[in-house]
Amino acid sequence: MSRSVDVALRWSDMDAYGHVNNVQFLRLLEDARVAAFAEWFDEDRSMLDSGVLVARHEIEYLAPLVFRHAPVRIMLWPTAIAGASFDVAYEVRDPDEVGEQLYARAETSLVAYDFARSAPRRLDPRERAVLQGLAGEPVAFRWRRR
Amino acid sequence: MSRSVDVALRWSDMDAYGHVNNVQFLRLLEDARVAAFAEWFDEDRSMLDSGVLVARHEIEYLAPLVFRHAPVRIMLWPTAIAGASFDVAYEVRDPDEVGEQLYARAETSLVAYDFARSAPRRLDPRERAVLQGLAGEPVAFRWRRR
Amino acid sequence: MSRSVDVALRWSDMDAYGHVNNVQFLRLLEDARVAAFAEWFDEDRSMLDSGVLVARHEIEYLAPLVFRHAPVRIMLWPTAIAGASFDVAYEVRDPDEVGEQLYARAETSLVAYDFARSAPRRLDPRERAVLQGLAGEPVAFRWRRR
Amino acid sequence: MSRSVDVALRWSDMDAYGHVNNVQFLRLLEDARVAAFAEWFDEDRSMLDSGVLVARHEIEYLAPLVFRHAPVRIMLWPTAIAGASFDVAYEVRDPDEVGEQLYARAETSLVAYDFARSAPRRLDPRERAVLQGLAGEPVAFRWRRR
Repeated sequence: MSRSVDVALRWSDMDAYGHVNNVQFLRLLEDARVAAFAEWFDEDRSMLDSGVLVARHEIEYLAPLVFRHAPVRIMLWPTAIAGASFDVAYEVRDPDEVGEQLYARAETSLVAYDFARSAPRRLDPRERAVLQGLAGEPVAFRWRRR
Repeated sequence: MSRSVDVALRWSDMDAYGHVNNVQFLRLLEDARVAAFAEWFDEDRSMLDSGVLVARHEIEYLAPLVFRHAPVRIMLWPTAIAGASFDVAYEVRDPDEVGEQLYARAETSLVAYDFARSAPRRLDPRERAVLQGLAGEPVAFRWRRR
Repeated sequence: MSRSVDVALRWSDMDAYGHVNNVQFLRLLEDARVAAFAEWFDEDRSMLDSGVLVARHEIEYLAPLVFRHAPVRIMLWPTAIAGASFDVAYEVRDPDEVGEQLYARAETSLVAYDFARSAPRRLDPRERAVLQGLAGEPVAFRWRRR
Repeated sequence: MSRSVDVALRWSDMDAYGHVNNVQFLRLLEDARVAAFAEWFDEDRSMLDSGVLVARHEIEYLAPLVFRHAPVRIMLWPTAIAGASFDVAYEVRDPDEVGEQLYARAETSLVAYDFARSAPRRLDPRERAVLQGLAGEPVAFRWRRR
Protein backbone atom coordinates (compact mmCIF):
# COMPACT_ATOMS: atom_id res chain seq x y z
CA MET A 1 0.00 0.00 0.00
CA SER A 2 1.22 3.40 -1.01
CA ARG A 3 1.94 6.52 1.01
CA SER A 4 2.06 8.68 -2.09
CA VAL A 5 -0.59 10.06 -4.45
CA ASP A 6 0.02 12.31 -7.46
CA VAL A 7 -2.71 14.93 -7.81
CA ALA A 8 -3.15 16.93 -11.02
CA LEU A 9 -3.32 20.69 -10.65
CA ARG A 10 -6.03 22.71 -12.33
CA TRP A 11 -5.40 26.09 -13.89
CA SER A 12 -8.19 27.43 -11.68
CA ASP A 13 -6.25 26.45 -8.54
CA MET A 14 -4.39 29.72 -9.06
CA ASP A 15 -5.79 32.89 -7.55
CA ALA A 16 -5.41 36.52 -8.61
CA TYR A 17 -1.78 36.48 -7.40
CA GLY A 18 -0.93 33.80 -9.97
CA HIS A 19 -0.11 31.18 -7.34
CA VAL A 20 -1.99 28.05 -6.29
CA ASN A 21 -4.31 29.53 -3.67
CA ASN A 22 -3.64 28.57 -0.06
CA VAL A 23 -7.17 27.18 0.37
CA GLN A 24 -6.79 25.04 -2.75
CA PHE A 25 -3.92 23.19 -1.06
CA LEU A 26 -6.53 21.73 1.30
CA ARG A 27 -8.56 20.76 -1.76
CA LEU A 28 -5.53 18.88 -3.12
CA LEU A 29 -5.12 17.12 0.23
CA GLU A 30 -8.79 16.09 0.10
CA ASP A 31 -8.25 14.39 -3.23
CA ALA A 32 -5.08 12.69 -2.03
CA ARG A 33 -7.00 11.36 0.98
CA VAL A 34 -9.89 10.11 -1.16
CA ALA A 35 -7.47 8.27 -3.46
CA ALA A 36 -5.34 6.88 -0.62
CA PHE A 37 -8.29 5.70 1.46
CA ALA A 38 -9.76 3.92 -1.57
CA GLU A 39 -6.49 1.99 -1.82
CA TRP A 40 -5.81 1.54 1.89
CA PHE A 41 -9.25 0.37 2.93
CA ASP A 42 -11.26 -0.95 0.04
CA GLU A 43 -11.60 -0.29 -3.63
CA ASP A 44 -15.36 0.12 -3.58
CA ARG A 45 -16.18 1.13 -0.04
CA SER A 46 -13.60 3.72 0.94
CA MET A 47 -13.47 4.89 4.52
CA LEU A 48 -14.93 8.15 3.28
CA ASP A 49 -18.18 6.28 2.79
CA SER A 50 -18.01 3.97 5.79
CA GLY A 51 -16.90 6.73 7.14
CA VAL A 52 -14.89 9.48 8.77
CA LEU A 53 -15.41 13.12 9.70
CA VAL A 54 -12.77 15.84 9.37
CA ALA A 55 -12.34 17.32 12.85
CA ARG A 56 -9.34 19.54 12.26
CA HIS A 57 -6.76 20.74 9.72
CA GLU A 58 -3.38 22.35 10.21
CA ILE A 59 -1.24 23.44 7.29
CA GLU A 60 2.01 25.32 6.88
CA TYR A 61 3.03 26.86 3.54
CA LEU A 62 6.69 26.66 2.59
CA ALA A 63 7.01 27.76 -1.03
CA PRO A 64 4.73 29.26 -3.70
CA LEU A 65 3.37 26.85 -6.29
CA VAL A 66 2.45 27.91 -9.83
CA PHE A 67 0.18 25.87 -12.11
CA ARG A 68 2.06 23.47 -14.35
CA HIS A 69 1.07 20.36 -16.29
CA ALA A 70 3.04 18.11 -13.91
CA PRO A 71 1.09 16.96 -10.83
CA VAL A 72 2.11 17.47 -7.23
CA ARG A 73 3.15 14.43 -5.24
CA ILE A 74 1.37 14.23 -1.92
CA MET A 75 2.99 11.97 0.67
CA LEU A 76 0.49 10.98 3.37
CA TRP A 77 0.54 8.59 6.30
CA PRO A 78 -1.42 7.96 9.53
CA THR A 79 -0.24 9.21 12.93
CA ALA A 80 -1.80 9.45 16.41
CA ILE A 81 -4.02 6.36 15.93
CA ALA A 82 -6.49 6.25 18.84
CA GLY A 83 -9.68 4.34 19.62
CA ALA A 84 -12.01 6.41 17.49
CA SER A 85 -9.74 8.84 15.66
CA PHE A 86 -6.46 9.23 13.85
CA ASP A 87 -4.44 11.94 12.14
CA VAL A 88 -3.16 12.00 8.58
CA ALA A 89 0.18 13.76 8.01
CA TYR A 90 0.99 15.17 4.57
CA GLU A 91 3.80 16.65 2.55
CA VAL A 92 3.06 18.38 -0.77
CA ARG A 93 6.12 17.92 -3.00
CA ASP A 94 7.34 17.84 -6.54
CA PRO A 95 7.40 14.36 -8.08
CA ASP A 96 11.00 13.10 -8.15
CA GLU A 97 11.25 13.55 -11.92
CA VAL A 98 10.18 17.22 -11.62
CA GLY A 99 12.16 18.55 -8.67
CA GLU A 100 12.79 18.50 -4.95
CA GLN A 101 10.65 21.35 -3.69
CA LEU A 102 8.51 20.91 -0.57
CA TYR A 103 5.51 23.26 -0.85
CA ALA A 104 3.54 22.53 2.31
CA ARG A 105 3.20 20.23 5.27
CA ALA A 106 -0.15 19.52 6.87
CA GLU A 107 -2.14 17.38 9.25
CA THR A 108 -5.82 16.38 9.34
CA SER A 109 -7.54 14.90 12.39
CA LEU A 110 -10.26 12.42 11.48
CA VAL A 111 -12.96 10.91 13.67
CA ALA A 112 -14.47 7.53 12.80
CA TYR A 113 -18.19 8.02 12.31
CA ASP A 114 -21.23 5.86 11.78
CA PHE A 115 -23.37 7.82 9.34
CA ALA A 116 -26.29 5.40 9.68
CA ARG A 117 -26.48 6.04 13.43
CA SER A 118 -25.15 9.65 13.22
CA ALA A 119 -22.68 8.88 15.98
CA PRO A 120 -18.94 8.47 16.48
CA ARG A 121 -17.75 4.88 16.37
CA ARG A 122 -14.60 2.94 17.20
CA LEU A 123 -12.11 2.06 14.47
CA ASP A 124 -12.68 -1.59 13.57
CA PRO A 125 -9.77 -4.06 13.87
CA ARG A 126 -9.18 -4.21 10.12
CA GLU A 127 -9.03 -0.40 9.83
CA ARG A 128 -6.68 -0.25 12.81
CA ALA A 129 -4.37 -2.86 11.32
CA VAL A 130 -4.17 -0.99 8.03
CA LEU A 131 -3.45 2.32 9.76
CA GLN A 132 -0.78 0.82 12.01
CA GLY A 133 0.94 -0.80 9.05
CA LEU A 134 1.25 2.60 7.38
CA ALA A 135 1.87 4.76 10.46
CA GLY A 136 4.72 7.27 10.58
CA GLU A 137 6.06 10.26 12.42
CA PRO A 138 3.82 13.24 13.24
CA VAL A 139 4.38 16.42 11.25
CA ALA A 140 7.14 18.67 12.57
CA PHE A 141 5.43 22.04 12.18
CA ARG A 142 7.94 24.85 12.45
CA TRP A 143 5.46 27.62 13.07
CA ARG A 144 3.73 26.03 16.05
CA ARG A 145 7.00 25.90 17.99
CA ARG A 146 7.51 29.67 17.99
CA MET B 1 -13.58 49.17 13.47
CA SER B 2 -15.40 45.88 13.44
CA ARG B 3 -14.33 42.40 14.52
CA SER B 4 -17.26 40.81 12.76
CA VAL B 5 -18.09 40.11 9.10
CA ASP B 6 -21.21 38.37 7.77
CA VAL B 7 -20.39 36.12 4.83
CA ALA B 8 -23.12 34.75 2.54
CA LEU B 9 -23.08 31.01 1.96
CA ARG B 10 -23.35 29.59 -1.54
CA TRP B 11 -25.35 26.48 -2.33
CA SER B 12 -22.17 25.07 -3.88
CA ASP B 13 -20.36 25.29 -0.54
CA MET B 14 -22.06 22.01 0.25
CA ASP B 15 -20.38 18.77 -0.74
CA ALA B 16 -21.84 15.35 -1.56
CA TYR B 17 -22.63 14.84 2.15
CA GLY B 18 -25.01 17.81 2.09
CA HIS B 19 -22.90 19.87 4.52
CA VAL B 20 -20.74 22.92 3.94
CA ASN B 21 -17.47 21.26 2.97
CA ASN B 22 -14.61 21.51 5.47
CA VAL B 23 -12.31 23.14 2.90
CA GLN B 24 -14.98 25.73 2.07
CA PHE B 25 -14.79 26.98 5.66
CA LEU B 26 -11.31 28.28 4.82
CA ARG B 27 -12.83 29.95 1.75
CA LEU B 28 -15.34 31.73 4.01
CA LEU B 29 -12.48 32.84 6.28
CA GLU B 30 -10.65 34.23 3.26
CA ASP B 31 -13.60 36.41 2.38
CA ALA B 32 -14.02 37.56 5.98
CA ARG B 33 -10.32 38.52 6.01
CA VAL B 34 -10.59 40.42 2.71
CA ALA B 35 -13.60 42.39 3.98
CA ALA B 36 -12.11 43.05 7.43
CA PHE B 37 -8.71 44.14 6.09
CA ALA B 38 -10.39 46.56 3.67
CA GLU B 39 -12.07 48.16 6.69
CA TRP B 40 -9.18 47.89 9.15
CA PHE B 41 -6.45 49.20 6.91
CA ASP B 42 -7.80 51.19 4.01
CA GLU B 43 -10.84 51.18 1.82
CA ASP B 44 -8.91 51.18 -1.42
CA ARG B 45 -5.58 49.64 -0.62
CA SER B 46 -6.29 46.65 1.61
CA MET B 47 -3.38 44.92 3.26
CA LEU B 48 -4.02 42.06 0.87
CA ASP B 49 -2.62 44.28 -1.85
CA SER B 50 0.07 46.00 0.16
CA GLY B 51 0.40 42.99 1.28
CA VAL B 52 0.52 39.83 3.34
CA LEU B 53 1.22 36.15 2.72
CA VAL B 54 -0.66 33.29 4.36
CA ALA B 55 1.96 31.21 6.17
CA ARG B 56 -0.27 28.83 8.09
CA HIS B 57 -3.88 27.84 8.86
CA GLU B 58 -5.31 25.84 11.73
CA ILE B 59 -9.02 25.06 11.97
CA GLU B 60 -11.19 22.96 14.24
CA TYR B 61 -14.72 21.94 13.23
CA LEU B 62 -17.36 21.94 15.96
CA ALA B 63 -20.73 21.44 14.28
CA PRO B 64 -22.02 20.65 10.78
CA LEU B 65 -23.32 23.58 8.76
CA VAL B 66 -26.00 23.24 6.07
CA PHE B 67 -26.60 25.84 3.36
CA ARG B 68 -29.24 28.40 4.28
CA HIS B 69 -30.11 31.87 3.03
CA ALA B 70 -28.83 33.48 6.25
CA PRO B 71 -25.10 34.28 6.27
CA VAL B 72 -22.58 33.07 8.81
CA ARG B 73 -21.08 35.60 11.17
CA ILE B 74 -17.31 35.41 11.29
CA MET B 75 -15.69 37.01 14.32
CA LEU B 76 -12.01 37.78 13.66
CA TRP B 77 -9.29 39.62 15.54
CA PRO B 78 -5.48 39.87 15.53
CA THR B 79 -3.27 37.96 17.96
CA ALA B 80 0.48 37.31 18.27
CA ILE B 81 1.49 40.62 16.66
CA ALA B 82 5.24 40.47 15.97
CA GLY B 83 7.71 42.52 13.94
CA ALA B 84 6.84 41.09 10.55
CA SER B 85 3.90 38.80 11.20
CA PHE B 86 0.64 38.39 13.07
CA ASP B 87 -2.11 35.83 13.52
CA VAL B 88 -5.80 36.25 12.88
CA ALA B 89 -8.15 34.30 15.17
CA TYR B 90 -11.66 33.41 13.96
CA GLU B 91 -14.95 32.02 15.14
CA VAL B 92 -17.59 30.97 12.61
CA ARG B 93 -21.00 31.51 14.22
CA ASP B 94 -24.67 32.09 13.58
CA PRO B 95 -25.65 35.75 13.47
CA ASP B 96 -27.43 36.63 16.74
CA GLU B 97 -30.81 36.81 15.05
CA VAL B 98 -30.37 33.27 13.65
CA GLY B 99 -28.97 31.28 16.57
CA GLU B 100 -26.09 30.64 18.90
CA GLN B 101 -24.22 27.83 17.20
CA LEU B 102 -20.41 27.93 16.96
CA TYR B 103 -19.38 25.98 13.83
CA ALA B 104 -15.61 26.34 13.80
CA ARG B 105 -12.66 28.14 15.35
CA ALA B 106 -9.54 28.87 13.36
CA GLU B 107 -6.27 30.76 13.16
CA THR B 108 -4.25 32.08 10.22
CA SER B 109 -0.62 33.19 10.47
CA LEU B 110 0.21 36.03 8.12
CA VAL B 111 3.60 37.41 7.11
CA ALA B 112 3.95 41.01 5.97
CA TYR B 113 5.35 40.97 2.46
CA ASP B 114 6.64 43.46 -0.05
CA PHE B 115 5.44 42.15 -3.39
CA ALA B 116 7.45 44.75 -5.33
CA ARG B 117 10.71 43.50 -3.78
CA SER B 118 9.49 39.88 -3.35
CA ALA B 119 10.70 39.94 0.24
CA PRO B 120 9.29 39.91 3.75
CA ARG B 121 8.95 43.33 5.33
CA ARG B 122 8.25 44.78 8.78
CA LEU B 123 4.75 45.87 9.72
CA ASP B 124 4.62 49.65 9.43
CA PRO B 125 3.65 51.74 12.48
CA ARG B 126 0.15 52.47 11.21
CA GLU B 127 -0.55 48.77 10.55
CA ARG B 128 0.80 47.88 13.97
CA ALA B 129 -1.39 50.48 15.69
CA VAL B 130 -4.49 49.17 13.94
CA LEU B 131 -3.70 45.57 14.84
CA GLN B 132 -2.94 46.37 18.47
CA GLY B 133 -6.18 48.31 18.79
CA LEU B 134 -8.13 45.24 17.67
CA ALA B 135 -6.02 42.54 19.32
CA GLY B 136 -7.59 39.78 21.40
CA GLU B 137 -6.96 36.40 22.95
CA PRO B 138 -5.42 33.56 20.92
CA VAL B 139 -7.74 30.73 19.89
CA ALA B 140 -8.20 28.03 22.52
CA PHE B 141 -8.02 24.96 20.30
CA ARG B 142 -9.33 21.91 22.13
CA TRP B 143 -7.83 19.34 19.83
CA ARG B 144 -4.25 20.55 20.02
CA ARG B 145 -4.18 20.05 23.79
CA ARG B 146 -4.86 16.31 23.62
CA MET C 1 -42.17 38.27 -6.39
CA SER C 2 -38.83 39.56 -7.52
CA ARG C 3 -36.92 39.14 -10.76
CA SER C 4 -33.71 40.40 -9.19
CA VAL C 5 -31.19 38.89 -6.77
CA ASP C 6 -28.01 40.53 -5.49
CA VAL C 7 -25.17 38.02 -5.18
CA ALA C 8 -21.99 38.82 -3.22
CA LEU C 9 -18.73 38.25 -5.04
CA ARG C 10 -15.90 36.34 -3.39
CA TRP C 11 -12.29 37.34 -3.80
CA SER C 12 -11.63 33.78 -5.01
CA ASP C 13 -14.01 34.30 -7.95
CA MET C 14 -11.06 35.97 -9.63
CA ASP C 15 -8.65 33.86 -11.62
CA ALA C 16 -4.96 34.37 -12.42
CA TYR C 17 -5.91 37.17 -14.85
CA GLY C 18 -7.39 39.21 -12.00
CA HIS C 19 -10.95 39.02 -13.38
CA VAL C 20 -13.97 37.11 -12.17
CA ASN C 21 -13.44 33.82 -13.98
CA ASN C 22 -15.84 32.99 -16.80
CA VAL C 23 -16.87 29.69 -15.14
CA GLN C 24 -17.59 31.50 -11.86
CA PHE C 25 -20.27 33.53 -13.62
CA LEU C 26 -22.27 30.29 -13.88
CA ARG C 27 -21.67 29.80 -10.16
CA LEU C 28 -23.17 33.24 -9.49
CA LEU C 29 -26.17 32.33 -11.66
CA GLU C 30 -26.63 29.13 -9.63
CA ASP C 31 -26.88 31.13 -6.43
CA ALA C 32 -29.28 33.63 -7.98
CA ARG C 33 -31.47 30.72 -9.10
CA VAL C 34 -31.40 29.10 -5.66
CA ALA C 35 -32.42 32.37 -3.99
CA ALA C 36 -35.08 33.22 -6.60
CA PHE C 37 -36.66 29.74 -6.59
CA ALA C 38 -36.87 29.83 -2.78
CA GLU C 39 -38.90 33.02 -3.12
CA TRP C 40 -40.90 32.12 -6.23
CA PHE C 41 -41.99 28.65 -5.17
CA ASP C 42 -41.78 28.15 -1.47
CA GLU C 43 -39.59 29.29 1.38
CA ASP C 44 -38.85 25.82 2.68
CA ARG C 45 -39.26 23.53 -0.30
CA SER C 46 -37.62 25.28 -3.20
CA MET C 47 -38.01 23.81 -6.64
CA LEU C 48 -34.39 22.77 -6.41
CA ASP C 49 -35.48 20.17 -3.89
CA SER C 50 -38.83 19.30 -5.46
CA GLY C 51 -37.04 19.54 -8.15
CA VAL C 52 -35.42 20.47 -11.43
CA LEU C 53 -32.44 19.35 -13.49
CA VAL C 54 -30.15 21.67 -15.43
CA ALA C 55 -30.28 20.52 -19.05
CA ARG C 56 -28.38 23.33 -20.73
CA HIS C 57 -26.57 26.64 -20.21
CA GLU C 58 -25.69 29.37 -22.65
CA ILE C 59 -23.76 32.46 -21.60
CA GLU C 60 -22.27 35.45 -23.39
CA TYR C 61 -19.65 37.66 -21.72
CA LEU C 62 -19.87 41.38 -22.36
CA ALA C 63 -17.42 43.09 -20.00
CA PRO C 64 -14.72 42.04 -17.53
CA LEU C 65 -15.70 42.06 -13.85
CA VAL C 66 -13.19 42.62 -11.05
CA PHE C 67 -13.85 41.66 -7.42
CA ARG C 68 -15.34 44.47 -5.34
CA HIS C 69 -17.26 44.59 -2.09
CA ALA C 70 -20.48 45.54 -3.88
CA PRO C 71 -22.54 42.58 -5.12
CA VAL C 72 -23.66 41.98 -8.68
CA ARG C 73 -27.35 42.29 -9.45
CA ILE C 74 -28.67 39.30 -11.35
CA MET C 75 -31.95 39.85 -13.17
CA LEU C 76 -33.67 36.53 -13.94
CA TRP C 77 -37.04 35.53 -15.36
CA PRO C 78 -38.68 32.45 -16.90
CA THR C 79 -39.07 32.01 -20.66
CA ALA C 80 -40.09 29.11 -22.93
CA ILE C 81 -42.44 27.54 -20.39
CA ALA C 82 -43.43 24.10 -21.69
CA GLY C 83 -45.11 21.02 -20.24
CA ALA C 84 -42.09 19.66 -18.42
CA SER C 85 -39.42 22.30 -18.86
CA PHE C 86 -38.69 26.01 -18.89
CA ASP C 87 -35.78 28.35 -19.44
CA VAL C 88 -34.42 30.98 -17.10
CA ALA C 89 -32.99 34.12 -18.72
CA TYR C 90 -30.41 36.21 -16.86
CA GLU C 91 -28.56 39.48 -16.98
CA VAL C 92 -25.57 40.07 -14.69
CA ARG C 93 -25.45 43.80 -13.93
CA ASP C 94 -24.22 46.40 -11.51
CA PRO C 95 -26.76 47.33 -8.84
CA ASP C 96 -28.29 50.73 -9.72
CA GLU C 97 -26.37 52.46 -6.93
CA VAL C 98 -23.05 51.12 -8.27
CA GLY C 99 -23.29 51.61 -12.02
CA GLU C 100 -24.91 50.61 -15.28
CA GLN C 101 -22.59 47.96 -16.64
CA LEU C 102 -24.01 44.74 -18.12
CA TYR C 103 -21.41 41.97 -17.64
CA ALA C 104 -23.12 38.92 -19.11
CA ARG C 105 -26.38 37.54 -20.43
CA ALA C 106 -27.27 33.89 -20.08
CA GLU C 107 -29.96 31.25 -20.30
CA THR C 108 -30.45 27.96 -18.47
CA SER C 109 -32.83 25.24 -19.62
CA LEU C 110 -34.40 23.31 -16.74
CA VAL C 111 -36.34 20.06 -16.79
CA ALA C 112 -38.88 19.30 -14.07
CA TYR C 113 -37.79 16.11 -12.36
CA ASP C 114 -39.19 13.73 -9.80
CA PHE C 115 -36.16 12.67 -7.75
CA ALA C 116 -38.16 10.04 -5.84
CA ARG C 117 -39.08 8.25 -9.09
CA SER C 118 -35.87 9.29 -10.94
CA ALA C 119 -37.97 10.43 -13.87
CA PRO C 120 -38.99 13.63 -15.63
CA ARG C 121 -42.34 15.00 -14.54
CA ARG C 122 -44.81 17.65 -15.69
CA LEU C 123 -44.79 21.11 -14.11
CA ASP C 124 -47.65 21.22 -11.64
CA PRO C 125 -50.36 23.91 -12.04
CA ARG C 126 -49.04 26.03 -9.17
CA GLU C 127 -45.48 26.01 -10.58
CA ARG C 128 -46.84 26.89 -14.02
CA ALA C 129 -48.87 29.78 -12.64
CA VAL C 130 -45.85 31.21 -10.83
CA LEU C 131 -43.65 30.91 -13.91
CA GLN C 132 -46.23 32.48 -16.21
CA GLY C 133 -46.69 35.39 -13.81
CA LEU C 134 -42.97 36.13 -14.00
CA ALA C 135 -42.34 35.25 -17.65
CA GLY C 136 -40.45 37.61 -19.95
CA GLU C 137 -38.64 37.84 -23.25
CA PRO C 138 -36.02 35.27 -24.25
CA VAL C 139 -32.38 36.37 -24.18
CA ALA C 140 -31.21 38.16 -27.33
CA PHE C 141 -27.80 36.55 -27.72
CA ARG C 142 -25.66 38.50 -30.13
CA TRP C 143 -23.11 35.82 -30.77
CA ARG C 144 -25.56 33.12 -31.82
CA ARG C 145 -26.84 35.25 -34.68
CA ARG C 146 -23.50 35.43 -36.47
CA MET D 1 -1.50 16.87 -32.29
CA SER D 2 -4.27 15.47 -30.20
CA ARG D 3 -7.98 16.25 -30.06
CA SER D 4 -8.39 14.43 -26.76
CA VAL D 5 -7.44 15.25 -23.17
CA ASP D 6 -8.11 13.11 -20.10
CA VAL D 7 -9.05 15.24 -17.09
CA ALA D 8 -9.05 13.81 -13.55
CA LEU D 9 -12.21 14.36 -11.53
CA ARG D 10 -12.04 15.66 -7.99
CA TRP D 11 -14.32 14.42 -5.25
CA SER D 12 -15.34 18.03 -4.68
CA ASP D 13 -16.68 18.26 -8.24
CA MET D 14 -19.80 16.62 -6.82
CA ASP D 15 -22.52 18.79 -5.34
CA ALA D 16 -25.12 18.06 -2.66
CA TYR D 17 -27.00 15.83 -5.14
CA GLY D 18 -24.00 13.50 -5.36
CA HIS D 19 -23.36 14.25 -9.05
CA VAL D 20 -20.61 16.22 -10.73
CA ASN D 21 -22.11 19.71 -10.59
CA ASN D 22 -23.22 21.24 -13.89
CA VAL D 23 -20.95 24.28 -13.39
CA GLN D 24 -17.96 22.03 -12.72
CA PHE D 25 -18.32 20.60 -16.23
CA LEU D 26 -17.22 24.02 -17.52
CA ARG D 27 -14.28 23.81 -15.12
CA LEU D 28 -13.29 20.47 -16.65
CA LEU D 29 -13.53 22.02 -20.13
CA GLU D 30 -11.26 24.86 -18.98
CA ASP D 31 -8.58 22.38 -17.99
CA ALA D 32 -8.94 20.43 -21.21
CA ARG D 33 -8.51 23.69 -23.14
CA VAL D 34 -5.44 24.69 -21.14
CA ALA D 35 -3.81 21.30 -21.77
CA ALA D 36 -4.78 21.17 -25.45
CA PHE D 37 -3.63 24.73 -26.20
CA ALA D 38 -0.28 24.03 -24.56
CA GLU D 39 0.15 21.15 -26.99
CA TRP D 40 -1.41 22.74 -30.07
CA PHE D 41 0.35 26.06 -29.90
CA ASP D 42 3.49 25.92 -27.83
CA GLU D 43 4.74 24.07 -24.78
CA ASP D 44 5.81 27.16 -22.89
CA ARG D 45 3.71 29.97 -24.32
CA SER D 46 0.20 28.58 -24.63
CA MET D 47 -2.39 30.66 -26.41
CA LEU D 48 -3.94 31.26 -23.00
CA ASP D 49 -0.98 33.51 -22.28
CA SER D 50 -0.54 34.95 -25.74
CA GLY D 51 -3.76 35.01 -25.54
CA VAL D 52 -7.49 34.51 -25.93
CA LEU D 53 -10.65 35.67 -24.18
CA VAL D 54 -13.69 33.50 -23.56
CA ALA D 55 -16.62 35.27 -25.23
CA ARG D 56 -19.32 32.62 -24.90
CA HIS D 57 -20.11 29.10 -23.65
CA GLU D 58 -22.92 26.76 -24.55
CA ILE D 59 -23.30 23.35 -22.92
CA GLU D 60 -25.88 20.58 -23.01
CA TYR D 61 -25.98 17.88 -20.34
CA LEU D 62 -26.80 14.35 -21.48
CA ALA D 63 -26.17 12.04 -18.52
CA PRO D 64 -25.31 12.38 -14.83
CA LEU D 65 -21.67 11.83 -13.87
CA VAL D 66 -20.59 10.55 -10.45
CA PHE D 67 -17.05 10.95 -9.10
CA ARG D 68 -14.82 7.99 -9.85
CA HIS D 69 -11.06 7.49 -9.92
CA ALA D 70 -11.04 7.20 -13.72
CA PRO D 71 -10.77 10.51 -15.58
CA VAL D 72 -13.19 11.81 -18.18
CA ARG D 73 -12.02 12.01 -21.77
CA ILE D 74 -12.68 15.37 -23.31
CA MET D 75 -12.64 15.48 -27.10
CA LEU D 76 -12.11 19.01 -28.38
CA TRP D 77 -11.53 20.59 -31.79
CA PRO D 78 -11.72 24.02 -33.43
CA THR D 79 -14.68 25.13 -35.51
CA ALA D 80 -15.85 28.45 -37.01
CA ILE D 81 -12.30 29.79 -37.49
CA ALA D 82 -12.58 33.49 -38.40
CA GLY D 83 -10.19 36.43 -38.60
CA ALA D 84 -10.02 37.16 -34.90
CA SER D 85 -12.02 34.39 -33.28
CA PHE D 86 -12.77 30.68 -33.31
CA ASP D 87 -14.96 28.20 -31.48
CA VAL D 88 -13.89 25.08 -29.62
CA ALA D 89 -16.33 22.15 -29.71
CA TYR D 90 -16.23 19.53 -26.95
CA GLU D 91 -17.58 16.14 -25.99
CA VAL D 92 -17.20 14.89 -22.41
CA ARG D 93 -16.98 11.09 -22.57
CA ASP D 94 -15.77 8.01 -20.78
CA PRO D 95 -12.29 6.90 -21.82
CA ASP D 96 -12.60 3.87 -24.14
CA GLU D 97 -11.35 1.49 -21.44
CA VAL D 98 -14.06 2.71 -19.02
CA GLY D 99 -17.20 2.89 -21.11
CA GLU D 100 -19.08 4.58 -23.93
CA GLN D 101 -21.16 7.19 -22.14
CA LEU D 102 -21.40 10.73 -23.53
CA TYR D 103 -22.02 13.13 -20.60
CA ALA D 104 -22.11 16.53 -22.25
CA ARG D 105 -21.45 18.43 -25.46
CA ALA D 106 -20.35 22.02 -25.41
CA GLU D 107 -18.94 24.92 -27.38
CA THR D 108 -16.78 27.88 -26.37
CA SER D 109 -16.29 30.99 -28.50
CA LEU D 110 -12.84 32.53 -28.12
CA VAL D 111 -11.58 35.91 -29.24
CA ALA D 112 -7.88 36.44 -29.96
CA TYR D 113 -6.64 39.17 -27.66
CA ASP D 114 -3.52 41.20 -27.20
CA PHE D 115 -3.17 41.60 -23.43
CA ALA D 116 -0.26 44.05 -23.79
CA ARG D 117 -2.41 46.44 -25.84
CA SER D 118 -5.72 45.43 -24.18
CA ALA D 119 -7.29 45.02 -27.58
CA PRO D 120 -8.59 42.28 -29.88
CA ARG D 121 -6.09 41.08 -32.45
CA ARG D 122 -6.10 38.90 -35.57
CA LEU D 123 -5.10 35.26 -35.37
CA ASP D 124 -1.55 34.99 -36.64
CA PRO D 125 -0.78 32.69 -39.62
CA ARG D 126 0.80 30.00 -37.45
CA GLU D 127 -2.21 29.91 -35.08
CA ARG D 128 -4.57 29.76 -38.05
CA ALA D 129 -2.65 26.90 -39.63
CA VAL D 130 -2.75 24.90 -36.40
CA LEU D 131 -6.48 25.49 -35.96
CA GLN D 132 -7.30 24.60 -39.56
CA GLY D 133 -5.30 21.39 -39.29
CA LEU D 134 -7.42 20.32 -36.32
CA ALA D 135 -10.78 21.76 -37.40
CA GLY D 136 -13.94 19.66 -37.31
CA GLU D 137 -17.71 19.81 -37.41
CA PRO D 138 -19.63 22.24 -35.20
CA VAL D 139 -21.52 20.79 -32.23
CA ALA D 140 -24.99 19.45 -33.07
CA PHE D 141 -26.89 20.75 -30.06
CA ARG D 142 -30.24 19.04 -29.73
CA TRP D 143 -31.82 21.55 -27.38
CA ARG D 144 -31.22 24.59 -29.57
CA ARG D 145 -33.24 23.09 -32.39
CA ARG D 146 -36.48 22.82 -30.41
